[in-house]
Amino acid sequence: MTVGSSMSEEMEPESMSMRPLGAAAVPEPELLCIFGTGDLGRSLGLRLLQSGYRVVYGSRRPHSCGPLPEGAQVMSHETAAQSACLIFICVHREHYGFLETMAPHLKGKVLVDLSNNLKKGMYPEANAAYLQRLVPGAAVVKGLNTLSAWALQNGLLAGKQVYLCGDSAEAKRAVGEMATKLGLTVQDRGSLSAARELEDFPLRLFQEWRLPLGVAIGLIAFFFFYLLIRDVIYAAVEQDKNISYRIMISLANKVFPIVSLVMLSLCYLPGVIAAFLQLYRGTKYRRFPDWLDRWMLCRKQMGLVALGLAFLHAIYTFIIPIRYAVRHKLISTVVEEVQVNNKTTPFFFDNTEAWGTDSFYVLGILGFFLYVLLGLTSLPSVGGTLSWREFSFIQSKLGHLTLFICTAHGYIYGWNKFLRSSTYKWYTPPGYMLCLIVPSVVLVLKCLLLLPCVDRTLTRIRQGWERTQTQEDSVMTKGTNL
Amino acid sequence: MTVGSSMSEEMEPESMSMRPLGAAAVPEPELLCIFGTGDLGRSLGLRLLQSGYRVVYGSRRPHSCGPLPEGAQVMSHETAAQSACLIFICVHREHYGFLETMAPHLKGKVLVDLSNNLKKGMYPEANAAYLQRLVPGAAVVKGLNTLSAWALQNGLLAGKQVYLCGDSAEAKRAVGEMATKLGLTVQDRGSLSAARELEDFPLRLFQEWRLPLGVAIGLIAFFFFYLLIRDVIYAAVEQDKNISYRIMISLANKVFPIVSLVMLSLCYLPGVIAAFLQLYRGTKYRRFPDWLDRWMLCRKQMGLVALGLAFLHAIYTFIIPIRYAVRHKLISTVVEEVQVNNKTTPFFFDNTEAWGTDSFYVLGILGFFLYVLLGLTSLPSVGGTLSWREFSFIQSKLGHLTLFICTAHGYIYGWNKFLRSSTYKWYTPPGYMLCLIVPSVVLVLKCLLLLPCVDRTLTRIRQGWERTQTQEDSVMTKGTNL
Amino acid sequence: MTVGSSMSEEMEPESMSMRPLGAAAVPEPELLCIFGTGDLGRSLGLRLLQSGYRVVYGSRRPHSCGPLPEGAQVMSHETAAQSACLIFICVHREHYGFLETMAPHLKGKVLVDLSNNLKKGMYPEANAAYLQRLVPGAAVVKGLNTLSAWALQNGLLAGKQVYLCGDSAEAKRAVGEMATKLGLTVQDRGSLSAARELEDFPLRLFQEWRLPLGVAIGLIAFFFFYLLIRDVIYAAVEQDKNISYRIMISLANKVFPIVSLVMLSLCYLPGVIAAFLQLYRGTKYRRFPDWLDRWMLCRKQMGLVALGLAFLHAIYTFIIPIRYAVRHKLISTVVEEVQVNNKTTPFFFDNTEAWGTDSFYVLGILGFFLYVLLGLTSLPSVGGTLSWREFSFIQSKLGHLTLFICTAHGYIYGWNKFLRSSTYKWYTPPGYMLCLIVPSVVLVLKCLLLLPCVDRTLTRIRQGWERTQTQEDSVMTKGTNL
Repeated sequence: MTVGSSMSEEMEPESMSMRPLGAAAVPEPELLCIFGTGDLGRSLGLRLLQSGYRVVYGSRRPHSCGPLPEGAQVMSHETAAQSACLIFICVHREHYGFLETMAPHLKGKVLVDLSNNLKKGMYPEANAAYLQRLVPGAAVVKGLNTLSAWALQNGLLAGKQVYLCGDSAEAKRAVGEMATKLGLTVQDRGSLSAARELEDFPLRLFQEWRLPLGVAIGLIAFFFFYLLIRDVIYAAVEQDKNISYRIMISLANKVFPIVSLVMLSLCYLPGVIAAFLQLYRGTKYRRFPDWLDRWMLCRKQMGLVALGLAFLHAIYTFIIPIRYAVRHKLISTVVEEVQVNNKTTPFFFDNTEAWGTDSFYVLGILGFFLYVLLGLTSLPSVGGTLSWREFSFIQSKLGHLTLFICTAHGYIYGWNKFLRSSTYKWYTPPGYMLCLIVPSVVLVLKCLLLLPCVDRTLTRIRQGWERTQTQEDSVMTKGTNL
Repeated sequence: MTVGSSMSEEMEPESMSMRPLGAAAVPEPELLCIFGTGDLGRSLGLRLLQSGYRVVYGSRRPHSCGPLPEGAQVMSHETAAQSACLIFICVHREHYGFLETMAPHLKGKVLVDLSNNLKKGMYPEANAAYLQRLVPGAAVVKGLNTLSAWALQNGLLAGKQVYLCGDSAEAKRAVGEMATKLGLTVQDRGSLSAARELEDFPLRLFQEWRLPLGVAIGLIAFFFFYLLIRDVIYAAVEQDKNISYRIMISLANKVFPIVSLVMLSLCYLPGVIAAFLQLYRGTKYRRFPDWLDRWMLCRKQMGLVALGLAFLHAIYTFIIPIRYAVRHKLISTVVEEVQVNNKTTPFFFDNTEAWGTDSFYVLGILGFFLYVLLGLTSLPSVGGTLSWREFSFIQSKLGHLTLFICTAHGYIYGWNKFLRSSTYKWYTPPGYMLCLIVPSVVLVLKCLLLLPCVDRTLTRIRQGWERTQTQEDSVMTKGTNL
Repeated sequence: MTVGSSMSEEMEPESMSMRPLGAAAVPEPELLCIFGTGDLGRSLGLRLLQSGYRVVYGSRRPHSCGPLPEGAQVMSHETAAQSACLIFICVHREHYGFLETMAPHLKGKVLVDLSNNLKKGMYPEANAAYLQRLVPGAAVVKGLNTLSAWALQNGLLAGKQVYLCGDSAEAKRAVGEMATKLGLTVQDRGSLSAARELEDFPLRLFQEWRLPLGVAIGLIAFFFFYLLIRDVIYAAVEQDKNISYRIMISLANKVFPIVSLVMLSLCYLPGVIAAFLQLYRGTKYRRFPDWLDRWMLCRKQMGLVALGLAFLHAIYTFIIPIRYAVRHKLISTVVEEVQVNNKTTPFFFDNTEAWGTDSFYVLGILGFFLYVLLGLTSLPSVGGTLSWREFSFIQSKLGHLTLFICTAHGYIYGWNKFLRSSTYKWYTPPGYMLCLIVPSVVLVLKCLLLLPCVDRTLTRIRQGWERTQTQEDSVMTKGTNL
């Protein structure tokens, strides 16, 4: 349709062009009520006003309740409640009492309970359930309680996921529409019995980080004591030397890379296990065991912890040459060389040694570079700009390459040491050997998966093919899965 | 309601399924008009088309105005104006003249003035006010002028805040709805008299960075000259040595960490002051003084400037051993040792010194690591994924830990120097002592706030409790604040 | 309008407040149908349910199709199709066959084809065209195929751009509205003949990175072999010395900064060329040649590749002092000094050398710092918070400053070498000289553009002024361009 023809319909200028200015054609925006003029109430009101709603506050002291967002009205709780259908309860649970006396005014209203508690299990019943008990005639919806006053004030809402629950589907829908208009993404969590779960959400503290951090701390503790015994205590007992000063940097600079490499390989191990499980089962339609699911869900956090340790390893390495112990050793080597051995010819320059150590450093640098690249693409705003193929290329191909390079870095470290008997103090293997076990296993398994025949079967399984089904079933299933 | 029952209502296939294809049921999308076919006009049109509007351009030369977004029509200004109710004025203010002659055609229309000026105060009246004077019959809305053609073209609009002002509430509402449909967050700034303020917004340049950068530059200048006098000029005057080469790196590597630490403590000082002010006043309902408000608003920028300086300090430290002066000193130390002193025994290895310097480095590394972590969580996309409890944990707990570690790093630096008289050249304290004052004060005050009795009172105040009120009032206030 | 007056209209509590709870006033949300219960189908359904739609799945095996999102119904394809107007086809193209037999049930429906292929050109016609051929009575819309199941599941949709194409404008509008409700930004790409293009989008792999990476690899290869010949092979042939160990680090640490600097200057060269082209043509209304357009579009990627190389250069530099070769040289220098030359006086300390090398390091550090700053502002979430003036300040002013500092870093490197004949081995200039050519040219041209007379003309051209037009034309053009 051309604009010309559309104009013929719309071009009675007098009647048409006045439309947006005519009050009749543009309906009054909806009025919402907020009980409570604290931080949360004020920030929520501000955001609602900016999204085009009208806002009225209910307050016990309408004339002295501090600064409120411009454009909002304040009145008594009763008057405010009567003017709106949707009422946000931005009041602490301890003060819900007054709502019971107001119950007749709240009949048929939708009450949105945004309250949170200071810690888990403070009260026998959920705040929202308690509210519903106080005001049985209203439709209580628990939700939006994961929004902070701070996020509301700063407009950091776009795309944020919020949760709703409540017994009235209509009430939930009304709240959901309001939330969508604020730019939020709404997820319905069912009836009001889920309120307790929702109230626990904001009290979570790095839940998905706990397992990775726990693993990291456990590994760090293990390797720290293992190396402490092998290095410092061994030297004290067997050689009667005090090298305790090494604990601060030398030892830490062994523990961090070891744990970092193990954590990185633990990122990629569950993917490999899942692939073998799918191959063994011959289908992708059976759920993974719980432990594997949990493990796969915290791979990103595991990788970031590994990156943090690699970062520490890098800085620890950079400052090696300015350490007192290192400079002391350098100077005393020279002095000893000159005075005691009385050498007159320059040192012998070992080309193999030069190549070996340089390769060791280069692999470390490249590994760290790729590590940082992986970390950058896991930033939400960077990851969001990548297509799925790009994201999987980086996380899978580049990730396994990083693991390979870092493992090679570890192997080269020990290339000329693993055959010396002095390496196995007190018959224990050195730390770098222990830390190479898991990455090597992951890399070998991954190589097996890349064999053409295995890869082909796996790809078919992931496209919905099942090994054990009959031919007819197979066609049907394939028909419905993408 | 089950899907089955919904089907019984909706399953007359002929009438129902044809609905989305029937032109009658789906109304024509609204037609908007854009005056001006420059970069901004074209980008805006593209975005409007993509949001489902129809777009018509008004141009003086409809047949030779360059490439326009596909789907848009071009016609003369008069014809274009008649076809739409909402007209975007994407023309420089200098060329508004033609709109006066068109005033009859623009009667009753909503004119959106998106124009900006090249610098502040170029004209005695705001562009929008001038436009309203030229076309008194139209409803002028100033707004969206903070959007750049570049942001429009690249679709970087989601959640972005834009400002509107105008004398007609209906006109503002129409523009606001359009903006919301584009994914923008709209804030109403009142009548057209606010237009001047809105026109100054895009001319702002790092406004919130000015105070932190000013403080940083002032501190850097002060400490630079202070250390220049104490180190280089002192050596030249008293010892007749030219160590001016130290200015470039050694001096800078003292100034940067000093200023970084002071800036970091200035991040946390206002929070502590605010807490003591609340304790003293016994309420959280009185506004902080203006200077404290301004200070608290630029804490993030202050922290990032501090991080930048810490980053420079780290790199300056890493390159120490490859500097000519450092290598020269190392070599000449050895040569002197061997030749002049003619020592034959190796150097004495000072275990305390080794522990001391290593602890110094380790604290620096850990401090820098936490610094970087704080910086990462202040990235908008990372901070947005954190819950409020996580964010406050990182910024408060981790922030104070960082300050503590960095302060300890400073104390260890001077652990064996502060009693030597050679430290106090010309009776002045060294730089690191000066820079430890503010962080130490902040940490001591913070410790006081963590005392159980103080902490309990503060928590109650922050939950809305007021010290001086009567019991009855107290209940009421508490009832309305979250 | 005050809230008081609005209340008088709305305050019949019985009728009003019941409204959100009354089923009649709130219409049933729209029902959408999804064919296919694979990953994509499930994730899409989850997101649709969360956006307030009702969802029904069509499956060949409605009773055994695995876990589906809570709230969705499953039924046979035929029943599901009848209940909804909009049907998402989340099935692999190979299994479209069953749709042909269902064609009568799909008459008048809107079919959204989300399918992708595994590689380009697998089939002679686009999947959507094939689907339209199978079901001629339906309105096929190709689109949303750039969304991954992963992005849908994680709610990473806000503001993401999706593409639609199809022959029925009404069908596209219905799909577009649904997509807008999911938070997506929709772009209409015309008729169904564009389907092939849309199907190729998800198969793109770092398309905009190809040119920059190609240039980087080409430059790295060239400079690597150039320096290999000049350094290692020259030493082997002319001096009969084996310094091949230098390849790993010394050589790489020359190649990376050289290529990084050239890439950085290639970022700013197209802008300068474009400015001169506009000056020469006297207008901004003629399109740039294609190669310049392509070049300008990948400036950001070029800059990020340059930053990556600069990062590698920095780390390579930090580990210099812990290399075996460097320590060996240091020790043997000292030993030789003491034993062979038998010097007794300390080395001569060259103040000029100290200043020169320190300036060299400081410029490198500052350049790297600014580099990192530029990289940080190119993060989507950081760049999004900047105003246009701030963004252009950083990318233009700070960018050229970075280029200037890095170029100066290069010049100082060769300040005392460019006159020695030993520098020109085999009559070739050293690498750092070659790499300074392009940056120097860019900086000189940029300085020319900053001359007041040139700058004024350019600013006028960029505001729409044209040199060759008549006066009358000029006024008119200026009147329509911002």
